[in-house]
Amino acid sequence: MSLKNIGEKIYHINKMETKIYLDYNATTPLDKNVRETINDALEHCWGNPSSSHNTGKSAKRVIDEARRNVATMIGGSSSDVIFTSGGTEANNMIILSAVHHFRKLYGLTNSNGLPSEKAKTHNSLASDLSRLDKSPKKRKLSDGDGDEIQHGVFYGDGDHKIRRLPHIISSYLEHPAVNVFLEHLKSTGQADVTYAEISQTTGRVEVEGITKAIRPNTILVTVMLANNETGIIQPVREICEAIRNLDRSELETEQIYVHTDAAQAIGKISVDVQSLGVDYLTIVGHKFYGPRIGAVYTRGLAKSETPLFPVFYGGGQEKGLRAGTENTGMIAGLGKASEIVNANLTEFQTHMKMCRDYLESRLTEHFKERVHFNGKFPGIESLPNTCNVSILGKNLQGHRVLEKCKTIEASVGAACHAQNKPSAILLAVGIPEDIARNALRLSLGRETTLADVDLVVEDLVQAVQELDAE
Amino acid sequence: MSLKNIGEKIYHINKMETKIYLDYNATTPLDKNVRETINDALEHCWGNPSSSHNTGKSAKRVIDEARRNVATMIGGSSSDVIFTSGGTEANNMIILSAVHHFRKLYGLTNSNGLPSEKAKTHNSLASDLSRLDKSPKKRKLSDGDGDEIQHGVFYGDGDHKIRRLPHIISSYLEHPAVNVFLEHLKSTGQADVTYAEISQTTGRVEVEGITKAIRPNTILVTVMLANNETGIIQPVREICEAIRNLDRSELETEQIYVHTDAAQAIGKISVDVQSLGVDYLTIVGHKFYGPRIGAVYTRGLAKSETPLFPVFYGGGQEKGLRAGTENTGMIAGLGKASEIVNANLTEFQTHMKMCRDYLESRLTEHFKERVHFNGKFPGIESLPNTCNVSILGKNLQGHRVLEKCKTIEASVGAACHAQNKPSAILLAVGIPEDIARNALRLSLGRETTLADVDLVVEDLVQAVQELDAE
Repeated sequence: MSLKNIGEKIYHINKMETKIYLDYNATTPLDKNVRETINDALEHCWGNPSSSHNTGKSAKRVIDEARRNVATMIGGSSSDVIFTSGGTEANNMIILSAVHHFRKLYGLTNSNGLPSEKAKTHNSLASDLSRLDKSPKKRKLSDGDGDEIQHGVFYGDGDHKIRRLPHIISSYLEHPAVNVFLEHLKSTGQADVTYAEISQTTGRVEVEGITKAIRPNTILVTVMLANNETGIIQPVREICEAIRNLDRSELETEQIYVHTDAAQAIGKISVDVQSLGVDYLTIVGHKFYGPRIGAVYTRGLAKSETPLFPVFYGGGQEKGLRAGTENTGMIAGLGKASEIVNANLTEFQTHMKMCRDYLESRLTEHFKERVHFNGKFPGIESLPNTCNVSILGKNLQGHRVLEKCKTIEASVGAACHAQNKPSAILLAVGIPEDIARNALRLSLGRETTLADVDLVVEDLVQAVQELDAE
Repeated sequence: MSLKNIGEKIYHINKMETKIYLDYNATTPLDKNVRETINDALEHCWGNPSSSHNTGKSAKRVIDEARRNVATMIGGSSSDVIFTSGGTEANNMIILSAVHHFRKLYGLTNSNGLPSEKAKTHNSLASDLSRLDKSPKKRKLSDGDGDEIQHGVFYGDGDHKIRRLPHIISSYLEHPAVNVFLEHLKSTGQADVTYAEISQTTGRVEVEGITKAIRPNTILVTVMLANNETGIIQPVREICEAIRNLDRSELETEQIYVHTDAAQAIGKISVDVQSLGVDYLTIVGHKFYGPRIGAVYTRGLAKSETPLFPVFYGGGQEKGLRAGTENTGMIAGLGKASEIVNANLTEFQTHMKMCRDYLESRLTEHFKERVHFNGKFPGIESLPNTCNVSILGKNLQGHRVLEKCKTIEASVGAACHAQNKPSAILLAVGIPEDIARNALRLSLGRETTLADVDLVVEDLVQAVQELDAE
């Protein structure tokens, strides 16, 4: 079957069955204008941006314009934005940059960000041996036989060499592109990682959770801006403020960088790198009606204020930080999606919030005390489009409810989440296991209507009736 | 200026000035059907392929179909193809996989492919110390003080620990996504690299150049299938055969894997992984009228016959080997571009060769003994679309000629190549420096016509006349 046929068939089925998509946190459709921009760029601006003829230069101009629109959207400077293949690459690249920077700080790397042949002793480290005794369990002693591959820093001499790894603070709420990668770095002995605890009264990571976790070798704090399952907005601004106000004389690393993955926040709430105060920010096109590419914001990149190291080596694209012929069409689309957010954010926000609030009131009206909203914590802000809800009852596990639904296309959590387990995110914010198992993540979009909400509630009511009777 | 305006303006300018694009080796326009396929997929199949509802599943089906078409194009199995963001990622990923595999072979890595906490002694290595004396200069002695970060393998004991790095053989003809990355691995002490010499009588890397470079710790040979500047086809099949026929008892690594970057070959000549015998192959969409993404072919991937390790960590996409929500639209486009090649290769090939041969005969007719074809070596096969030509004369440096041209959009070499230096590729194949400085890379496409060639020759004739007169 050709692609067109597949597409038409799906459209046909959806029309027949009146499917209502409520999984906008998993991915969004592309805005019509974004698609047109992509198509235009693919047709007219397909040249190699590194070529010096007009066909190349026109592609270069399209990329420059897109970069400006993306930068405007997040309140950053154009020169601080690097395009990547997506959010996973962006998150991995930022975390790796912090790791490489740590090694470089201690003379362990050359300018390429990878370990140098010969480690040099770092003065501030050498003079700081005494501090180690305060938390000896955090540090590993090497057996000193030299047979190990070691990514950390050694100092001291004789039988008691001390190994030093970059320390990264994160939370249990992060996307796999952060926490799976952190676990990989940890399990391969490349970084120490602390996951700050989640407050059960706010459903967020709190500033104190972060500051409590700081060690002399902390190099990066990475906390998402809004959670993809609960929609809860994390106190990233407050975390940046606390980090800025730290007594730096306590730090071996001179500076702790703060990264936020803004994948779920962009296009739903205002995101501004200046008011947040972050050093790195991840942008993911397909969460705000854009294409499947991403970008990294790095504060003061052009002036090397914040370190960024390449993952790939090859051509000199993206200032040598991201080799590979630029994906002009997709980049143009990301620029257009950003432009649309810049022009319409308040409207989108208001509309989604209205529909989401209506959905929640209709659910409460129907299911009364059986409804539990998993992302609602008193006084805590959340995304305007996300309703994470459990309907209480022994047969009402999220995946069973969705299977009985005739209209709703939604999920029980993140897209890759195993259906038969309660969401780890919900457990982390303190939702009891039996309630977490029943969770439905209903995430709304720009085109969701009140009429859609009525159909969705109707669908849920019939599904619950059927399951109650089983 | 909006993108559409930029595009229209360029089109307008090009129409006015009758520009003829002859830089198809830098990048190609997208085939109209490829663009339509991308647009369709972006419109209808935008769901998250990891989602379990229909919107997600339809995206998954599109990806599966594209994978089949890509696999068919190169004679491989669908399960051996992994999509990447482009050729740079593909080449870097394959080379890194060989490096990780080497470490794993020697017990230096865990299953994730990165160094384990504790290196284990590898039996075959330990029993092989005697062989080291044969080429002591190739190996580095550590100072044994344990203060170094080391990516290699140590064995032996006492004061003479031997460091072992994975050894990779390549050539001076490779794309920066291979050779810049190899230089990076070399300069950061992660790999030893040998560049096999280029035969000045064939303009290729020859089998003997590769086999001569083999060491007991050789893990990978990476040689492109066709050179982007000269168009010369490299003897990859013969290299694979020679590697297969090696006496493996001489190897510590048990097996040497062969990778070919087929970026420039696909869509121009028949590329078949079975007849080539390669273990890895790089596919780059934008060189064959497809989108700016790529793919990695890995022989027997599903059965773990050939090692492939992830670069990114996150979601479990692409069998856990390439995290990140799939770029469905671009993947669909890559599938369509492959389908088009599958159906029309012979026709494309014949057409491009006819135009290229006509171009060469017209150039010879006009410039006579002043013409030097830099990619022509007796009896050596080359791409049907590439004409690397120098017109001899003191003012006729390639970039000066192109500046005087009114019609031609071409290049003096690879897209990122500095204009005022002779091409390193041409010097490597033995073209004298003064001839190499005058090189023009005229690369033709599916839509190039004989009439275009006439205009191009006319344009070159006037440019040369002007420059001769200066």
